[in-house]
Amino acid sequence: MQVQIEDAFWNAQIKKVQTQMLPFQWQVLNDEVAEAPKSGAINNFKIAAGKQKGEFYGMVFQDTDVYKWLEAVAYSLAIQPDPALEALADETIDLIGAAQMSDGYLNTYFQIFKPALKWTNLTDNHELYCFGHLIEAGVAYYEVTKKQPILTIITKAADLLTARFGYGQPLAFPGHPEIELALLRLYHLTKKAAYLELAKYFILERGQQPSFFVTETKERIANHVPSWIDIMHDGFVVPEFTHSEDVSYYVATKRLIDQTVVEGHAVRACYLYTALADLAALENDPTLKNAAMRLFDNATTKQMYLTGGLGQTWRNEGFTHDYDLPNDTNYCETCAGISLIFWARKMLALHSDSHYAEVIERALYNNTLGAMALDGKSFYYSNVLEKGPHHLTDAARPKWHACACCPPNLARLLLSLNHYLAHVENEIFYLDQFIGANYIEMFTEDAEITVQANLPFEGQVEIQVKQAPENKQLAIRLPKWSARFSVFKNGQRQREGLDFTINQGYLIFHEAMQTGDHWVCTFELTARLTYANPLVKADIGKAALTRGPLVYCLEEEDNGPHLWQLTWSAEEFEVVKEETTNKLADMVLLKSLALREVALDQDLYTYHQPTTQTQVVTAIPFFARYNRSVGEMQVWTRYR
Amino acid sequence: MQVQIEDAFWNAQIKKVQTQMLPFQWQVLNDEVAEAPKSGAINNFKIAAGKQKGEFYGMVFQDTDVYKWLEAVAYSLAIQPDPALEALADETIDLIGAAQMSDGYLNTYFQIFKPALKWTNLTDNHELYCFGHLIEAGVAYYEVTKKQPILTIITKAADLLTARFGYGQPLAFPGHPEIELALLRLYHLTKKAAYLELAKYFILERGQQPSFFVTETKERIANHVPSWIDIMHDGFVVPEFTHSEDVSYYVATKRLIDQTVVEGHAVRACYLYTALADLAALENDPTLKNAAMRLFDNATTKQMYLTGGLGQTWRNEGFTHDYDLPNDTNYCETCAGISLIFWARKMLALHSDSHYAEVIERALYNNTLGAMALDGKSFYYSNVLEKGPHHLTDAARPKWHACACCPPNLARLLLSLNHYLAHVENEIFYLDQFIGANYIEMFTEDAEITVQANLPFEGQVEIQVKQAPENKQLAIRLPKWSARFSVFKNGQRQREGLDFTINQGYLIFHEAMQTGDHWVCTFELTARLTYANPLVKADIGKAALTRGPLVYCLEEEDNGPHLWQLTWSAEEFEVVKEETTNKLADMVLLKSLALREVALDQDLYTYHQPTTQTQVVTAIPFFARYNRSVGEMQVWTRYR
Repeated sequence: MQVQIEDAFWNAQIKKVQTQMLPFQWQVLNDEVAEAPKSGAINNFKIAAGKQKGEFYGMVFQDTDVYKWLEAVAYSLAIQPDPALEALADETIDLIGAAQMSDGYLNTYFQIFKPALKWTNLTDNHELYCFGHLIEAGVAYYEVTKKQPILTIITKAADLLTARFGYGQPLAFPGHPEIELALLRLYHLTKKAAYLELAKYFILERGQQPSFFVTETKERIANHVPSWIDIMHDGFVVPEFTHSEDVSYYVATKRLIDQTVVEGHAVRACYLYTALADLAALENDPTLKNAAMRLFDNATTKQMYLTGGLGQTWRNEGFTHDYDLPNDTNYCETCAGISLIFWARKMLALHSDSHYAEVIERALYNNTLGAMALDGKSFYYSNVLEKGPHHLTDAARPKWHACACCPPNLARLLLSLNHYLAHVENEIFYLDQFIGANYIEMFTEDAEITVQANLPFEGQVEIQVKQAPENKQLAIRLPKWSARFSVFKNGQRQREGLDFTINQGYLIFHEAMQTGDHWVCTFELTARLTYANPLVKADIGKAALTRGPLVYCLEEEDNGPHLWQLTWSAEEFEVVKEETTNKLADMVLLKSLALREVALDQDLYTYHQPTTQTQVVTAIPFFARYNRSVGEMQVWTRYR
Repeated sequence: MQVQIEDAFWNAQIKKVQTQMLPFQWQVLNDEVAEAPKSGAINNFKIAAGKQKGEFYGMVFQDTDVYKWLEAVAYSLAIQPDPALEALADETIDLIGAAQMSDGYLNTYFQIFKPALKWTNLTDNHELYCFGHLIEAGVAYYEVTKKQPILTIITKAADLLTARFGYGQPLAFPGHPEIELALLRLYHLTKKAAYLELAKYFILERGQQPSFFVTETKERIANHVPSWIDIMHDGFVVPEFTHSEDVSYYVATKRLIDQTVVEGHAVRACYLYTALADLAALENDPTLKNAAMRLFDNATTKQMYLTGGLGQTWRNEGFTHDYDLPNDTNYCETCAGISLIFWARKMLALHSDSHYAEVIERALYNNTLGAMALDGKSFYYSNVLEKGPHHLTDAARPKWHACACCPPNLARLLLSLNHYLAHVENEIFYLDQFIGANYIEMFTEDAEITVQANLPFEGQVEIQVKQAPENKQLAIRLPKWSARFSVFKNGQRQREGLDFTINQGYLIFHEAMQTGDHWVCTFELTARLTYANPLVKADIGKAALTRGPLVYCLEEEDNGPHLWQLTWSAEEFEVVKEETTNKLADMVLLKSLALREVALDQDLYTYHQPTTQTQVVTAIPFFARYNRSVGEMQVWTRYR
């Protein structure tokens, strides 16, 4: 199935990535941006390739910034050919190939800086993580261009890994998962069994006790082998987890098939669970499928923010406890939200339940989209839902990050967004996202369907079958945010039971699609208060304003300071469309009456209940926050 | 004025300290308690005195544990002679004297362990802090026993300091204040001007820019001189504050007379501000008095917890911002609450305003008293107002602490509580606290007044003039927690304007006291909801239940888990007196109807507003929390 996005809202986002982020990122990788932290990434490859003298610079995973750029470039070329960009990518691939060692090894940190430390510390040193991103980028680039050099590089790299790791070798797992899903991508492309086997090993054997991570680290410490962090800080630290033997950070307290609750660093966990879901589909294994479903259910119905953000604390950059969802001390890393989208897409391939598509929509429109400024020039690492008056120094989006995982991850997601809009299962075409697009080659080569939509601010969706595949049905997700909906097919109102059945959150139309069929769906987009389960301490007595897939927030800019003093006083919200001259051009803002508590006296503590004043409050989409000024912001507001 | 406490409630607390804490503390100091962290404190003195071989053990301020014990013993002997205890104290004083160097220097850490580092690091090394506690203990012991050896020790020590520091010497200030108030105590005793002069120097010259603390630390780092923390951790760290030059932690961003907002480590700040208030009274200087009043006002009307706790965060163990009062991540160190009581007492001596007495009462009955378990055998360091379900590992009181500042501080406060109950100013005897006591020697040697009270659970107070001082008036604090009150004198109801005037929160009776006068005051003790100023984000929409001076809390033990789901539904509370067989023997508990929010469905997020169920909730005094079981606890509960 080929999908081309044709959507006013999303084409604009994609254009930002193509015109702003990709060129900017290339400049950063080449140390041409004065105001960004030094990268050194391209230079590292030049040194490793022997084309230049110098010293390694950056993190142990600095190479992945280049790989993620390359992967994003591949998706960009798929959207729109660009010979100059493709030439730049080919040059970069030549450089990567020149840096690769004859045995397939590739990691400029170890090649240039610490050759003796290769493979000494899988727990911390991110080597397999880097190979993973290399392979992902390579698969993407090969799929678009069919050019051989990158395929040679990545298969050589993967062959090194399959010779060194896996069943029959000493126990070994990566501290930061990523190689698992990359090997599966390479297997999907090449069908080479060894890649599948190694991915299975990493996915299924992880979590054995005693833990590989504890054992490796204890041995390393005994032999005085430093980690990359030790080297960076010029000190030698025995990690705390070796004492407690708590390997939850590494998502390794149990085998994945025995895990019932998600754990650890959110990005690591979701990359691993994404691979688990993919493997479950590949193997058609009910045990794996159940494990993936159970974990996805825990993550998204017990530990996910309303915005689709994951990671309740910066301590482990990850999961904590069910229903523990603080709004201002949380992490909600951009990469974690993106990894949830990766995972949800693999779940959809495993099981056609609209919950997975809804999670994609929630995470996409809120946590992910909002990580980027409206001008596409600055980015959040962490996406909290509330900022109080004393925590505003990091409220605005920074231009770039020393640990630059998030912006490139955003680039590769948005440029490959066409992969997340629909899926087919058996004889059914499932429309998962209401994003305008042209679909071809599903089921048969000549099939073609177009979707027109105006989300996130308008709820009408039209689907036109330009060329019907033979004897296939259409399924349209029924979005939970729509209190009422109507569907017309070829001018006829469609009725549940007669014309369609609702199954797992999809309207499944009984009749096979015919060329010329034309559906018009109208989903009611009303402002609605959303409540959290009362088990969530942080949201008790509060409601968030939502409209369609969008979560709204209050900013000090519109509503004055001390936002916590406000309570929603009604469920009726006036819809206001912003002028196009405004920074929030064409967005739907919401206005409502609220009450504000005010003191009767100056006392810090008093026996007098505060009184209230009426105030009009303006809510804006969460993704558009902090594009005008820096001040307080909150998603959850008290109600009465 | 001599004061003997005769009060059922407080005599019981004092007895716990005398019978439990003091002997236990002595055992700890001598390393005789297996379950307490090793102390080494007495042993350090034996080694320094040459009576024993061995190595120093403990913190750089380990000596102060002995001094605080000695100070508490002095107060205990004043309450009740105990020849065996006094003999033990005399032996300890002999040991301290034997350890003291001929020039007066005394600090076993430096004498035994690091002689070369003496006076190299006033910023971190607590040398002057230790001298301060030595002097405080010495003054207290001398005042009770009039024995010369301790006076010789402390004046020798103080004379060393006055020769080394002060006006005309290089700039030098202690990182942890304490010596200032100690020197003033010694001045009150000896009237030696040099002690007052040095105290003035430390109080008035601190805060000069460039900061002594930055300069000293930069020089020390340049000369590779380690701090005691560096030595303990076997590493060498350049402190962050030398880069930022932010010396707020040391209460040194400005001179005290220019400070308008309290800052830094709460105990350090309050010790220093206590000395400032004392100096202001001594010098009768309006600038100093205004500074002390301004800072006390900021601390207690912008940054104090309802419990009288100070210190909003563990990061600096101290102050943050006005109205920033989180209930679960705060510090509220026991010593900080105690230091606030020290400070408030000096403020009362400076200015007869009942606000100061109320702060003493609030901090005493809640933050301070609750730091000790009901059996007097375990102690909090930090006194938070709320514990959620995932933060219960440190909810119970530990038996002792490696950094054992808090329990001995509590001991010396409770054993000297008789110093905090009343004060005289000009021709008026001000009754500040409603604690049963016998007062003699105010104004004249034969004067005697007795006070009977049954607080904190009953509100009747009787005052009897056994022997009137000539031509002196009585002032009784009118407690703000009393919605209604009545006063009878010799059977006659007293009326405002006719019989008394209310001034600065005191009922000031017009007629001079006569022998045989008898007042009966009835203060209404009703359960009342207390509200925080709406500028306090953490308490918005919440109310705390209070009754008289006591703050109440909810515990999971009585009310089930998920306390945040509860809302007070009424302002009427049933008063229930507990059976004497119960752990909360004789306490007044409060019961009320509340609503609990419950989910309509299992969803994490829903458009359906949660429904409510009615539940009877039981509130117990905050000081009595965590004496039965470990679970959730909260002071502030939502109201509607």
